[in-house]
Amino acid sequence: MAPRELRIGMVGYKFMGKAHSHAYRDLPFFFDTGVTPVMTAIAGRDEAGVRAAAEQFGFASCETDWRRLIERDDIDVVDIVTPNNTHAEIAIAAAKAGKHIICEKPLALTVDQAKQMRDAVNEAGVRAIVCHNYRFSPAIQYAKQLISSGKLGRIYHVRAQYLQDWIMDPEFPLVWRLRKEVTGSGALGDIGAHIIDLGRFLVGEITDLTATMETFIKERPLGEMSGGLNAKKDVNATGIVDVDDAAAWLAHFDQGALGVFEATRFAAGNRNGNRIEVNGEKGSIRWDLENMNNLQVYLVDDAPGLQGFRTINCTEEQHPFAGAYWPAGHIIGYEHTFINLFATFFQSIVDGTECKPDFEDGLQNERVLAAIEQSSERGQWVQVTQG
Amino acid sequence: MAPRELRIGMVGYKFMGKAHSHAYRDLPFFFDTGVTPVMTAIAGRDEAGVRAAAEQFGFASCETDWRRLIERDDIDVVDIVTPNNTHAEIAIAAAKAGKHIICEKPLALTVDQAKQMRDAVNEAGVRAIVCHNYRFSPAIQYAKQLISSGKLGRIYHVRAQYLQDWIMDPEFPLVWRLRKEVTGSGALGDIGAHIIDLGRFLVGEITDLTATMETFIKERPLGEMSGGLNAKKDVNATGIVDVDDAAAWLAHFDQGALGVFEATRFAAGNRNGNRIEVNGEKGSIRWDLENMNNLQVYLVDDAPGLQGFRTINCTEEQHPFAGAYWPAGHIIGYEHTFINLFATFFQSIVDGTECKPDFEDGLQNERVLAAIEQSSERGQWVQVTQG
Amino acid sequence: MAPRELRIGMVGYKFMGKAHSHAYRDLPFFFDTGVTPVMTAIAGRDEAGVRAAAEQFGFASCETDWRRLIERDDIDVVDIVTPNNTHAEIAIAAAKAGKHIICEKPLALTVDQAKQMRDAVNEAGVRAIVCHNYRFSPAIQYAKQLISSGKLGRIYHVRAQYLQDWIMDPEFPLVWRLRKEVTGSGALGDIGAHIIDLGRFLVGEITDLTATMETFIKERPLGEMSGGLNAKKDVNATGIVDVDDAAAWLAHFDQGALGVFEATRFAAGNRNGNRIEVNGEKGSIRWDLENMNNLQVYLVDDAPGLQGFRTINCTEEQHPFAGAYWPAGHIIGYEHTFINLFATFFQSIVDGTECKPDFEDGLQNERVLAAIEQSSERGQWVQVTQG
Amino acid sequence: MAPRELRIGMVGYKFMGKAHSHAYRDLPFFFDTGVTPVMTAIAGRDEAGVRAAAEQFGFASCETDWRRLIERDDIDVVDIVTPNNTHAEIAIAAAKAGKHIICEKPLALTVDQAKQMRDAVNEAGVRAIVCHNYRFSPAIQYAKQLISSGKLGRIYHVRAQYLQDWIMDPEFPLVWRLRKEVTGSGALGDIGAHIIDLGRFLVGEITDLTATMETFIKERPLGEMSGGLNAKKDVNATGIVDVDDAAAWLAHFDQGALGVFEATRFAAGNRNGNRIEVNGEKGSIRWDLENMNNLQVYLVDDAPGLQGFRTINCTEEQHPFAGAYWPAGHIIGYEHTFINLFATFFQSIVDGTECKPDFEDGLQNERVLAAIEQSSERGQWVQVTQG
Repeated sequence: MAPRELRIGMVGYKFMGKAHSHAYRDLPFFFDTGVTPVMTAIAGRDEAGVRAAAEQFGFASCETDWRRLIERDDIDVVDIVTPNNTHAEIAIAAAKAGKHIICEKPLALTVDQAKQMRDAVNEAGVRAIVCHNYRFSPAIQYAKQLISSGKLGRIYHVRAQYLQDWIMDPEFPLVWRLRKEVTGSGALGDIGAHIIDLGRFLVGEITDLTATMETFIKERPLGEMSGGLNAKKDVNATGIVDVDDAAAWLAHFDQGALGVFEATRFAAGNRNGNRIEVNGEKGSIRWDLENMNNLQVYLVDDAPGLQGFRTINCTEEQHPFAGAYWPAGHIIGYEHTFINLFATFFQSIVDGTECKPDFEDGLQNERVLAAIEQSSERGQWVQVTQG
Repeated sequence: MAPRELRIGMVGYKFMGKAHSHAYRDLPFFFDTGVTPVMTAIAGRDEAGVRAAAEQFGFASCETDWRRLIERDDIDVVDIVTPNNTHAEIAIAAAKAGKHIICEKPLALTVDQAKQMRDAVNEAGVRAIVCHNYRFSPAIQYAKQLISSGKLGRIYHVRAQYLQDWIMDPEFPLVWRLRKEVTGSGALGDIGAHIIDLGRFLVGEITDLTATMETFIKERPLGEMSGGLNAKKDVNATGIVDVDDAAAWLAHFDQGALGVFEATRFAAGNRNGNRIEVNGEKGSIRWDLENMNNLQVYLVDDAPGLQGFRTINCTEEQHPFAGAYWPAGHIIGYEHTFINLFATFFQSIVDGTECKPDFEDGLQNERVLAAIEQSSERGQWVQVTQG
Repeated sequence: MAPRELRIGMVGYKFMGKAHSHAYRDLPFFFDTGVTPVMTAIAGRDEAGVRAAAEQFGFASCETDWRRLIERDDIDVVDIVTPNNTHAEIAIAAAKAGKHIICEKPLALTVDQAKQMRDAVNEAGVRAIVCHNYRFSPAIQYAKQLISSGKLGRIYHVRAQYLQDWIMDPEFPLVWRLRKEVTGSGALGDIGAHIIDLGRFLVGEITDLTATMETFIKERPLGEMSGGLNAKKDVNATGIVDVDDAAAWLAHFDQGALGVFEATRFAAGNRNGNRIEVNGEKGSIRWDLENMNNLQVYLVDDAPGLQGFRTINCTEEQHPFAGAYWPAGHIIGYEHTFINLFATFFQSIVDGTECKPDFEDGLQNERVLAAIEQSSERGQWVQVTQG
Repeated sequence: MAPRELRIGMVGYKFMGKAHSHAYRDLPFFFDTGVTPVMTAIAGRDEAGVRAAAEQFGFASCETDWRRLIERDDIDVVDIVTPNNTHAEIAIAAAKAGKHIICEKPLALTVDQAKQMRDAVNEAGVRAIVCHNYRFSPAIQYAKQLISSGKLGRIYHVRAQYLQDWIMDPEFPLVWRLRKEVTGSGALGDIGAHIIDLGRFLVGEITDLTATMETFIKERPLGEMSGGLNAKKDVNATGIVDVDDAAAWLAHFDQGALGVFEATRFAAGNRNGNRIEVNGEKGSIRWDLENMNNLQVYLVDDAPGLQGFRTINCTEEQHPFAGAYWPAGHIIGYEHTFINLFATFFQSIVDGTECKPDFEDGLQNERVLAAIEQSSERGQWVQVTQG
C-alpha cells in the first residue's frame, strides 16, 4: 500500500527554499496524487535563520546540521536547495539513508559528482528528481506532446535563449552565485542548464557542440544575496569574478537538429527571458517564460492563406496540468511549475513509475555543461558523452 | 489589540469557493498582515457536497444551513460565494450577527438590495469587501498609481472590454449563470461588473450612459454548472434564456472622460479577455487579463523618436503586491488577485483603515448595472445616481 | 474596345494629393489593369502652389480653377482631394461633364449633398469611387473573403476603434480639419468614416445607433496644415473648435450583429490605430492598421488544445492584391492601399463591372455619420435610413 | 556641377530586378537628391525575356550582352542583379568603363573576387554600393543612431536570426539559389549575409567565429525560379544539393560584444524572419523584418517601475527616411528599403561624400562568409581578416 504521507526534510532556505515550500503547501489543494507532503523539518547552519525560515515556510522543526536531518526516521524525502557545491555530498548521504531526493539544478559542480549522485541513487533504489521546473509549464508540456506525437515532424532547429539582466550593474556584488567554488559556473549552470534541459526534453540528446563564454565585468565588490535575486554589498573590498556572465553554444542533436543556445545575465530589459523555438518539418513552436502561459504554434498543413503562428493560452483542459487549476483564460504563474513538478514526482512514487528529469538527466545535463566549458577553453567542438 | 486569527465561514463552494479557499491557504505564506485566516466552516445545502468541499478546500467543519454558520461564535468573517440572488439575505444576516463580510460580485440583484446591504454593514459597524479581484492585479494597481499621481494627466478616454466565449455553443445549457432570477443578468453582471469596477477604480464615477443588451441564443437545453465554467446538460428539455449574452454602453465620467464598454460571452477566441485602455493628456495605459502581468504604458513626454508603448512586466518591487512573491520576471496568475484582495482586506481590519471596494462601491456598481438595463430597455441615456 | 489610357485630372494637392499621385505612378508597375493612368492635369487656386505640386507629383499641366479642369477634353477621370465642403460641387460638375470620379472621404458634408452626388453620377452614367482605402488592405480583403464564405459563421460582434493623437496638444492650431464649415465634423468624418466603412464592408448595414461626441479642447490658436498631418500656428489669435475631438457609438447591424465604435484624436500613443475585430459563431478576426499586413484569425473548429488566434502575415499569393507585390513576408505599407483601390477601380472601368465603395456607399456612410450627429444631439437612438 | 540625371543600366531582371526597378521609379517622388535616375537600358541573355522585362519595369532599351550595356556612353550606373557567380566579372568591367556600380549581395563568390572588385572600383574612382537594403529600414537606421550616440552604452550582445521557410518542401527544386557554382552558398550567402551586415552596421567588426552549416535535404528535383521566391520543377530528374540549408555561428566583435547568428530556410512559419537584438550596458533594441516599422527599445535609465521595451513605430519625422513618406503611423514596406538605399547612394554621388555599404563592406562581409565556411569545415574558430 502506498504511503499516505511523504515527510519532507529540506536542506537550505533561500529563494529556492521559498519556491519549494510554497509548492508543498499548495500542491494538495490542486492535485490528488494519493500522497500528502508533510513539511517536517528544515536544515540550515544558522540557527536563527533556519528557525525563522521554518516558521515562515511552515516546517514543523529545524536542524542546524543537514546530517541530522538525513538521519531522522521521520523524513521520507530530502529536498536540496543549497548552493551547488553542496548538492553531491548531501544527495549521496540522503540516498544512503534511503531517502527520496529532490535536488535543485544544476545537479552538481562536475560530471564526476553527478555520476556519483546518480550511482548512489540507483544503488539505494530511491527516487530522485532534479528541479528543471520550466519543463513543467503547461505550454512546454504541451509542446512536448506535439513533438512526440509527430505533429511537428522531423525537427530541424532548436533555438533557445535564457536572457536575464540582474547583475548588469558593475556594483552588483560578488555573491555566491558569482563564485566558481560555490556555484561551478555563472550564467551557464544557473540558467543555461535550464535551456539545455528544455532542449533535451523537447528534442533529444546533444551529441557535440562548440561554445564560448564571457565575463564582461571582471571585478566586483564583495557581498551577499539578500532575498530573491537581490543582493547587498557587505564590505569595502572587491573580488575577481571567476564565472561566466554569458555563454553561447552551437550544438548538434542526435536526430539531426541544429541547436543554437545562449545564456546571459547581461541582456538589458530581459528580466527572465527564457525563450525557446523549435522548427520542424511540419510545424514550429515558440515559447517565452515571461508570458509562460502562451505557446505559439505554427502548422505547415494549415490551409494556404490561413497559415500563421497561433497564440495558444495553455490554460485549457487539453493542456497538461492546466485542468487542475482554473478555467481557460485564467493564467497561472512561475510558482506553479514547481507544483506541477512535485505532483509528478509524488505521483510517480505512489505509482512506482519512472519520473523525469531524474539524476540520469541531471548527469547528462552536467555532461553538456562540462562540454561547453571544455569547448570554450579549447576553442574546439567537443563530443558530449552519452549516458 | 488586533486579533491574531480571523476565522472564516464560507457560504457556497463552487468555482469562487475554490478560488477563495485557495487564497486563504496561500495568503499567510506571502503576506504578513498581522492576522491569520483560519478556515473554520463552510456551508451548503447538499450535505455530501459541502462535506466534500470542506475536505477538498481545507475547512474544519461544515453546515447545511448558512444561518447556522452565521450564528456560530467561532466565525469572524462570512465569505459569500453563492449565486447572486442569495447575497443580500446572507450578507444582511451576517452583518447583524456582527461578522465581517467578503462578498462575491455583483453585490446584489438590485440597487435596493445593495443599499440594504450597505446600510446593514454600516449599522453593524462591520467591515465588508466586494470581490472585484482584478483591480488587485499588480499591473492595475500600478496603473492606478500612475493615474492618481497625475502621470497620465487629465483622462480623456476609458475603453474596456470583457470578452469571453464559453457559452457560444447553442447546446451549452441553461445553467444558473444564465437564469435571471438567480443571477440578475448575464454577461452584464458577471463580467460587465468587473470592467465597471476597473473604470471606477482607475478613473472615477460614471455619471450617465446609453446602453444596449443582446441575447443571441434565446433558447437552450436545461443543465447545470459542473466545475469552473463547464456545464453538463441534465435533461431533454429546453428553456428560454432571459439574460443578456452581451452588453455595451457609452458613458461619461465625472471628470469628463468618455467611456466605451463592452461585455460579452460571444467573442470567439477570447477565453478571458478583460481588456482596458485609458488615454490621458500625458499618457496612456493598456492591459489585458490574459497576459495580466504586463502593463503597457505610453508617456507623452518621452523624447521624440523614442515614443512608444512600453511593455512593463509588473513583477518588480516597485509594482504593488509583486514584491511579496518572486523576483522580477517570475510571473503570477489569476489566483493571486484574490490573495492580494484578502491581504488588503485583512490588513485593513488589523489597521482599522478603510478598505475598497467596499459595499458602497458594490452599491455604486449596481447603480451602473441598473442604469445599463434601464437604458437598454428605454433606448435613452440614463443618469447614474451618485452615492 | 477599352481605352488604353485614363487621363487623370486631380483637384487639390495636399496630403491626399500626394497619396493619390503616388498611387497613379506606382500602379502600372504592379498591376496590369488594361489601362494606364496618365497624370494629365492638377487644379488648385494658388498658382505657385499648384505649379509646384504638378512638378512634385508629376502632372503634365495645371489649372487654377477646377471648373476649367473639368471642362477639358483630355480628362477622363476627376480625382477630388480637396476639403470636404467642396466635394459635392466638384463631383456633380464632373459627373455632368461625363467624367469618372474618384472622391476622398467623407463623400460630402451632408446626406443631401451625398444624395445629389450619387444621383448625378447615376444620371451621367459615369463611374465613381469614394476613397475608403483601408478596405483595400490585403488583410481586410482577406477578412472579407473569410466572412463572405461563411468561415466565421453568423456575426455577433463588430468592435472598431480609430485612435489618433495628432491634435492632443492644445497649441495645435485650428486648421481646416478642425473647422465645421470646411470639414463637416472632426474625428467623426475624418476617421470615424473609415471604421464605418470597414464595418459596412465586412459585416453589413447599420440599422440604428446611439452616439456621443466630445470636444475636449474647445479653443485653439489659428493656423494651417503644413504637410501630412502637421500644422503651424499662423497668427496670435484663437478660435472656437466647433467639431468633435472624439465620437463613439453603439450600433445594430442588419443581420443582428452588435457594433461598438470609437473614433478619437485624443488617444495618446496611437498614431494611427485603426483597429477592428469581428466575432462570429465560427471564428473571429482582429486587425490593426499600424501593423496592417497582419490579420489575426481564430477558428472555433481548430482542434481543442490548438485553439488560438493565428497571426497571418497577409503577404502570400492567397491574400488579395499581395501577389502583385513581393514574396511572402515582404510587407507592403499605407500607400499600397491606394494602389489597390485604384487598380480595382480602373479594372472595373475596363471590365464594365461594379466597383465598390461607390457613391451609394459614400451616401450610406454619410447617413450613418448624420445619424451619429443626430443621436449625439438628441441623446436617443436614431434609425439609419437605408439606401 | 553635379549631373542632373543618372542613367541606369541594369544587368539581370528577376526578383531583385523588379525591386530595384521599382525603386528607381518611385525614388524621385519621395526624395530630392539633386539627381534623377533614368532607366536607360537593361541587359539579359534571353532576348524575349529581357524585352518583356524592359517593358514591364520601364527601361527604355535592352541589350542581350551585358558587355554592350557597359560600353554604352549613355549609362552612368551599372546595376548588377544577376546570380552571384557573375557579379565580379560584370562589376570589374563596369568599373573599368568608369561606371558607378550598384551590386546585389553577396558581393561575390569568394574573398578574392570581392577584393578584385573593391580594387577595381578604387582604381577607377567610381562609386559602388552593395545592396544590403535592410540596414536602410528606418528602424535599423534609428537603432544605429541610438548605438552610435552611446544611448545603449557598451554593447554586450548581438543576437540575429534570418529565418525563412520557402524551400522546406523536399519537392522544391534545385534552382540556381541552391547551386553552389552559381550562388556560392545557400542560406548563408543569401540571408546570412544580411544579418552579418546588420551586425557590422550596428555594432562593428567580427574578429573571429565558430560555425556550423547544415544541408537537411540533400537531393532535389531539378527546376528553375519562376518569379519572386517561387519555382517550378522542370524535368524528371534530381540533383545533389551542394549548398547549406542553414548556418549558425558564434562570433566575437572587435569591441567585445558576443554575437550569436543563425540563417536558415528551414524555420517553418517564418516567411522572412530577419530578427536582430542588441543588448548594451544602458539599453537594448529588438527588430523583426516582418514588422519592420517597429523598433523595440529598452533603456536602463527609465524610472524603476516604468522599465520595459517600448514598441516604437518608426514612422515619425525623427526616424531616418520616414519623413519623406507619410505621417506618423502610416507604415512603409519592403520596397522602401531599396528606395532609401538608392536615395542615399545618389545623394552621395551628388555630394561627393562617402556611401556605405561600399565594396569594402561587401569584401568584409565576404571575409566573414568565408570564415564561416572554413570554420564549419574545420570545426575550429577562425579569425576574420580585417580590411
